[in-house]
Amino acid sequence: MAVTSISELRVDADRLWRRLEEMARIGATAAGGVHRLALSDEDRRARDLFRAWAESLELAVSVDRIGNMFARRAGTHDERPPVLLGSHLDSQPTGGRFDGALGVLAALEVVQTLEDHAVETAAPIEIANWTNEEGARFAPAMMGSGVFSSRFGLSDALNAADPDGVTVAEAIEGIGYRGKAAVGGRRLAAALELHIEQGPILEEKECDIGVVTGVQGARWFDLTIVGEEAHAGPTPMPRRTDPVAVLGRWVVDLYRRVERDFAPHGRLTMGVLEAMPASRNTVPGRVRVSVDIRHPEEPALDDLEVCLREEAERASSARGAEWRLEPVWRSPPVRFSGRCIDAIRSAAERCGYSSMSLMAGAGHDSVHTSDVAPTGMIFVPCEGGVSHNEAERITPEQAEAGANVLLHAALGLAG
Amino acid sequence: MAVTSISELRVDADRLWRRLEEMARIGATAAGGVHRLALSDEDRRARDLFRAWAESLELAVSVDRIGNMFARRAGTHDERPPVLLGSHLDSQPTGGRFDGALGVLAALEVVQTLEDHAVETAAPIEIANWTNEEGARFAPAMMGSGVFSSRFGLSDALNAADPDGVTVAEAIEGIGYRGKAAVGGRRLAAALELHIEQGPILEEKECDIGVVTGVQGARWFDLTIVGEEAHAGPTPMPRRTDPVAVLGRWVVDLYRRVERDFAPHGRLTMGVLEAMPASRNTVPGRVRVSVDIRHPEEPALDDLEVCLREEAERASSARGAEWRLEPVWRSPPVRFSGRCIDAIRSAAERCGYSSMSLMAGAGHDSVHTSDVAPTGMIFVPCEGGVSHNEAERITPEQAEAGANVLLHAALGLAG
Repeated sequence: MAVTSISELRVDADRLWRRLEEMARIGATAAGGVHRLALSDEDRRARDLFRAWAESLELAVSVDRIGNMFARRAGTHDERPPVLLGSHLDSQPTGGRFDGALGVLAALEVVQTLEDHAVETAAPIEIANWTNEEGARFAPAMMGSGVFSSRFGLSDALNAADPDGVTVAEAIEGIGYRGKAAVGGRRLAAALELHIEQGPILEEKECDIGVVTGVQGARWFDLTIVGEEAHAGPTPMPRRTDPVAVLGRWVVDLYRRVERDFAPHGRLTMGVLEAMPASRNTVPGRVRVSVDIRHPEEPALDDLEVCLREEAERASSARGAEWRLEPVWRSPPVRFSGRCIDAIRSAAERCGYSSMSLMAGAGHDSVHTSDVAPTGMIFVPCEGGVSHNEAERITPEQAEAGANVLLHAALGLAG
Repeated sequence: MAVTSISELRVDADRLWRRLEEMARIGATAAGGVHRLALSDEDRRARDLFRAWAESLELAVSVDRIGNMFARRAGTHDERPPVLLGSHLDSQPTGGRFDGALGVLAALEVVQTLEDHAVETAAPIEIANWTNEEGARFAPAMMGSGVFSSRFGLSDALNAADPDGVTVAEAIEGIGYRGKAAVGGRRLAAALELHIEQGPILEEKECDIGVVTGVQGARWFDLTIVGEEAHAGPTPMPRRTDPVAVLGRWVVDLYRRVERDFAPHGRLTMGVLEAMPASRNTVPGRVRVSVDIRHPEEPALDDLEVCLREEAERASSARGAEWRLEPVWRSPPVRFSGRCIDAIRSAAERCGYSSMSLMAGAGHDSVHTSDVAPTGMIFVPCEGGVSHNEAERITPEQAEAGANVLLHAALGLAG
């Protein structure tokens, strides 16, 4: 194909879309989403497909000891640190087709476009598929990139177990993706990640491209409310210490405060609920609930955490119950690299797309790469802002726009 | 042993207590309770032990097709319908030592006392161990007695599955207790059940024996609240349809109404809570909660059910969620037989125990036998009214008093 100048270079939108559709068939659910938990057999098949595509472009594929995959295209100055483009291929239990997969397959499309047009870069380019970004099967989330950046220890990560007691080490071994390469410990020129927004802002503003300036901080907890097991029939209501009644009070008061005092940036999510011993005709002895709070500012996260504790104490003491809040994970707010932000904004402009700055609400592997390399993220809109949902949807044009911006931002950074 | 008259006959309290302790070792938990789910290997061992004790008294043990066990002592008029004494040996997941086991082992002690003193009865006496009273592993509860009384169909009961998909039929077969006898369809002279109160009233009134006049009605439901799955990070709070926030509102408003408008008899229990897809960083798409309501009066149960629905509608519509309430099981209030009530009251008087009338708060196998035979229940106090809990506790003297009343009530009814 002939292009008169580098600035007219564009990805092959049809090829990218076909690959997204083919990838979405792995773990496809009846409702149109995907079920592709980290290190499951579906994840293995997704990895195999990605590797086959990368090898057909004669990229050198390596795997490290936590299962992160890297597909490398040499640069004319191959000793330089690489520009990394990537995301993840695992999904939520009932996840969408684009969360993660878009970033990996757009990176592949960028490299294939460079091949098609025989465009060389000074720095090498690597495509990354990070292990266990979602954290749905193994905690913590963003595991592979976290070990890469030394935020997590390798052996801690390998020992993390899923609810069935299977460890990460066993699961990686089981799908044949326990690589020999050391995890991280090498320089990157930059790291770029294309991702769907997973929020409604770009769509509302009718804007093509989000230039992500940073990521809000998040903290995870488990709250346990301890009441007293009792028989559902004979025990009079005033004699019960019912942790479900405490939970109700806590939920109502906490949502009220978060929605009133922490708008518009504060977020509160309780994704997992459990009563024990989980028998219909027994007042539960305890209730456990997961708590996820997010905010772009660290002091506001501190205040949110104080709220959790104050309302847990208020609701529990009103019924004579006890409570404990166990921290599970935390991720401070992140500011991305000015050089990457500029490269992304210029790339959008060069391609003729509208763009705006925004903060990411979710954790991403880019939070971890930003510890060890200049990092940037590109967002494209998704329908209704819906994500972590089988109904997650984007158009082929939106995928194309994101990949074109990734292409030109990578060219800007790789020289 | 010499007794001057039948009215001085008493059970052997030490022997009864030793058997209770031996039975409590099967499925014993570290906290002093038992884990002996219906048709589990622990249940098999409890059944084997009961059978061995019954056979050592030369009782004829039969098993029916739903696994109910009957140990029969002949009467001098053996063609007469038997007086049935019994309860159940299965337990809650973290249950106590006396719920059920006391009724079976006291019945065994009654028969052995008659043997020791060569006392014959006109009608035969049968000791029953009913299958799956608790309903903790297989729904519905009180299954064996329900099939016996034709309230449940045999094949429906055999097809009921536990959360792992194992059916009752497979589980009975697996532990070797699928008998050949037809289930029910035969006359009983009377049915008596000794049980711990599972409530605080006898202890508060310092009363030895509860003469149970009936059982409160119960209805079971599953409430599902349907919101919208969304990513925990980027989705702003006002754009969420979070079923956990709906659940909180519903719990608070419903408990308030039940505790205010249905005191002192109304009961509300939510024993099982679940959020789907149960991922920390996903706003759940739906929440499911089990609901158990109880009251001694049918019209009040109707009103309670209206409350459930009104508050579910109010809480859901406030956040744009949807809900559905699925009935799972219902048991209307029961009044026990006047003849059995009189026999129990007289027996307590003869033995010199204080007694009072009360309603049972829990479902019992006696609810089902009352469909097909004159039925009565004897309660003894339990510490703090605590039950369905590993801390469930009674004294040897309380067990003895209950067994003595069971003995004399049985003698009164068996002639």
